[in-house]
Amino acid sequence: MSEEKLPKQSENFSEWYNQLIARAELADYAPVRGCMVVRPYGWALWENIQKALDTRFKQTGHVNAAFPMLIPMSFLEKEKEHVEGFAPELAVVTIGGGQKLEEPLVVRPTSETIIGYMYSKWVKSYRDLPILINQWANVVRWELRTRMFLRTLEFYWQEGHTAHETAEEAEEETRRILDLYTDFAVNEAAVPVIPGIKSEAEKFAGAVRSYTIEAMMRDTKALQSGTSHNLGQNFAKAFDIQFLDRNNELQNAWTTSWGVSTRFVGAIIMTHGDDQGLILPPRLAPIQIVIVPIYKDPVSMDKVMPVVRQLEKSLSQFRVKVDDRDNVTPGFKFNDWELRGVPLRIEIGPRDVDNNTVVVAQRDIPGKAGKLFLSMDNLGGQLETILVDFHQRLLQRATEFRDSHIFEAKDFAEFKQIIQEGWAFAYWCGSTACETGIKDETKATTRCRPLDQKKTDGVCIYCGQPAEYKTYFARAY
Amino acid sequence: MSEEKLPKQSENFSEWYNQLIARAELADYAPVRGCMVVRPYGWALWENIQKALDTRFKQTGHVNAAFPMLIPMSFLEKEKEHVEGFAPELAVVTIGGGQKLEEPLVVRPTSETIIGYMYSKWVKSYRDLPILINQWANVVRWELRTRMFLRTLEFYWQEGHTAHETAEEAEEETRRILDLYTDFAVNEAAVPVIPGIKSEAEKFAGAVRSYTIEAMMRDTKALQSGTSHNLGQNFAKAFDIQFLDRNNELQNAWTTSWGVSTRFVGAIIMTHGDDQGLILPPRLAPIQIVIVPIYKDPVSMDKVMPVVRQLEKSLSQFRVKVDDRDNVTPGFKFNDWELRGVPLRIEIGPRDVDNNTVVVAQRDIPGKAGKLFLSMDNLGGQLETILVDFHQRLLQRATEFRDSHIFEAKDFAEFKQIIQEGWAFAYWCGSTACETGIKDETKATTRCRPLDQKKTDGVCIYCGQPAEYKTYFARAY
Repeated sequence: MSEEKLPKQSENFSEWYNQLIARAELADYAPVRGCMVVRPYGWALWENIQKALDTRFKQTGHVNAAFPMLIPMSFLEKEKEHVEGFAPELAVVTIGGGQKLEEPLVVRPTSETIIGYMYSKWVKSYRDLPILINQWANVVRWELRTRMFLRTLEFYWQEGHTAHETAEEAEEETRRILDLYTDFAVNEAAVPVIPGIKSEAEKFAGAVRSYTIEAMMRDTKALQSGTSHNLGQNFAKAFDIQFLDRNNELQNAWTTSWGVSTRFVGAIIMTHGDDQGLILPPRLAPIQIVIVPIYKDPVSMDKVMPVVRQLEKSLSQFRVKVDDRDNVTPGFKFNDWELRGVPLRIEIGPRDVDNNTVVVAQRDIPGKAGKLFLSMDNLGGQLETILVDFHQRLLQRATEFRDSHIFEAKDFAEFKQIIQEGWAFAYWCGSTACETGIKDETKATTRCRPLDQKKTDGVCIYCGQPAEYKTYFARAY
Repeated sequence: MSEEKLPKQSENFSEWYNQLIARAELADYAPVRGCMVVRPYGWALWENIQKALDTRFKQTGHVNAAFPMLIPMSFLEKEKEHVEGFAPELAVVTIGGGQKLEEPLVVRPTSETIIGYMYSKWVKSYRDLPILINQWANVVRWELRTRMFLRTLEFYWQEGHTAHETAEEAEEETRRILDLYTDFAVNEAAVPVIPGIKSEAEKFAGAVRSYTIEAMMRDTKALQSGTSHNLGQNFAKAFDIQFLDRNNELQNAWTTSWGVSTRFVGAIIMTHGDDQGLILPPRLAPIQIVIVPIYKDPVSMDKVMPVVRQLEKSLSQFRVKVDDRDNVTPGFKFNDWELRGVPLRIEIGPRDVDNNTVVVAQRDIPGKAGKLFLSMDNLGGQLETILVDFHQRLLQRATEFRDSHIFEAKDFAEFKQIIQEGWAFAYWCGSTACETGIKDETKATTRCRPLDQKKTDGVCIYCGQPAEYKTYFARAY
């Protein structure tokens, strides 16, 4: 870590983001344009995200599998909207084992096509349904403008692909996953997301209906943080996923797909971070508690270190690190772990040993106000409560920030103003023409229409025609 | 599962293997030549392998990260032996986003080069060493003759890449991992492997020294099941991984790499399987215990099922599945789960409910001899012991099979005979000429020279010249 200060969020959010990722050693630039190396600290965060999601997938009856990364080019062409959406972004293998390939192979940008092909082999009868498969995989999309975690040529994700007997079951699954993602974001990452439905223009290439969870970053831009798609029978028809139903009649299956990617790491950084660096939500933080021993000489070191090691052992229910570096000062260590967003820091000096106490600094409350002076007795129990409160504070802070940056617009002049400072929640007639007009004039896109909204009588913020629903508009990553 | 019987191992081992993988739903053929789809049952087995290895990596101080899959072609050319070894097997991306790329990108066949490049950026001082990183990844090698799990174009593995201050530390790491792999194979998979050192001809392209764990399959062929390479300073020199040492002098780092892949699934299938199908080692089996309820009518079903569900709950420390299918008979279920290699089957019928007992069938002991009649009281505790014994029996059976198929050859005529029936353990002078001669005449390759062997005075089985060590020779996958 360099001694230089991070740029302030308020001065240059983009530089703050880039430098923070480098200094906290979350990721580094790869020698191939637009690719990233996820470093151990960043990957440990992703592994905790994986565990939290995977547990939820398995609890809801899903199983993992692995499908090939290389897909025949002809597969993508079978679903018209799908190929139009992905063709410009493909990486293509044309040479294998020194020979030009007869049919080029695409590095998967997503796997609906090859999984659809396999499902058509596996599904014969309604008894073979539902299929509830997820895979953890890398995918490649040839993006021109890239950004660490948010948009990289290669990224990591989970992609769920399910097949069902009826339209209703497919819709239920799509919504079940949307709820699962919302629960994960709120209760693991303390990221207050707004679940909703995407517009026709913003939906997945090949889907009938796309749902999303949208989060507000601290520069007020929106980040799409997970999506769940009802694919109807589009892919079943393209890939012949057919089955004999309960009446012995041949039917096309109904399929869904859904994903959360390493982009979510970006959501965590930009939802919680501050001018000092990262603030990691405790349930996902690779290190929940760092212990910094304080001593000035070998005598006090000999007094402090055995207690530190004992404490480390007694806190084994947490992810704990002891910072025993001998070439940097405690002050340097404090800054370092603040930058890296570790939720709690325990300081122990000789006097603490005498008093059977520790000082606990909370990352989200700067200075003395955040310091707790605790007895070492039942310290684990106390810290559990403190971490629960920490999570709640992060969630509340992010929710308040978000809610104070969403405004209802009464006319388009106000709308344009709002978009500079936050999200607009406004009536929209639903036409792609208005959506495009708004985007061209303000750079704002439709983020989602919330699901619990009742029909009302309004007028479109852009064209003034009747509009039944309000939609969130924002500049987005 | 089809009703047809598997081919017998003794009649057609290769067909036994292929059909078993399909019928047990471990994997399926992908639409791209030489690629496989790992189905949920196969992937669950791989996930358990991953957990067992990953825990061991973390216990020995390693951390995970992720490096890009696409590598500039020029990187591979920096290490002469490396590029010679891998050039014929590369898949090459030449088009990205619709444009021909200026420099083609290789889909990683292994990641020494790109990781070496990153390490050269991260390592400045001896204080930055050691770096102990592992990644779980997919890699692609354009193989001509492929085989499910054993040799596929794309496969899954972990690849560890470490950098050290001294030659001694690099060698220690290489050997530590060899021990770790041996421990994993024996104590998790019940696969008795022989650790040893590879010959010059068989070592990794770019390594100074390669270690291996070698296992004997039930057709007596050898399977290389994991490798650990001491790369010396070869990659450090090629990629400028240099650091200031404790005397403030610039040095090249010493690096290692090591890997276990989905090939290990093949090792498990072919070490333990029999004519009835898979036998999975209990510590890695996706399902350790299957419960099959036995009833003939709704009345006995109502009697049996609540007890089955209660039992399922009380055995939550195991991976348990209740087979409650209502469209197949218990006999069909028995065969099905035997094929899939589930270690224990619990049968519960109405009489068992009355007697507070269950019948437990052990997969590795056919017929009545393997059946245990147990009280439901403390069933979990009893089953734990039974599974420990199961593991031990598998290991013992595999060890005995292996040891009874390894022979010491007194001359080359005998050697040729032995190679048809097992492995030969024979003096070899160490020359590549003899190794090639033996391979040409017998199809046997050197597998490894065991590490604990003392120098003795022998003569080479092929050329008759002096030879100090014996080496294992076998036909291999």
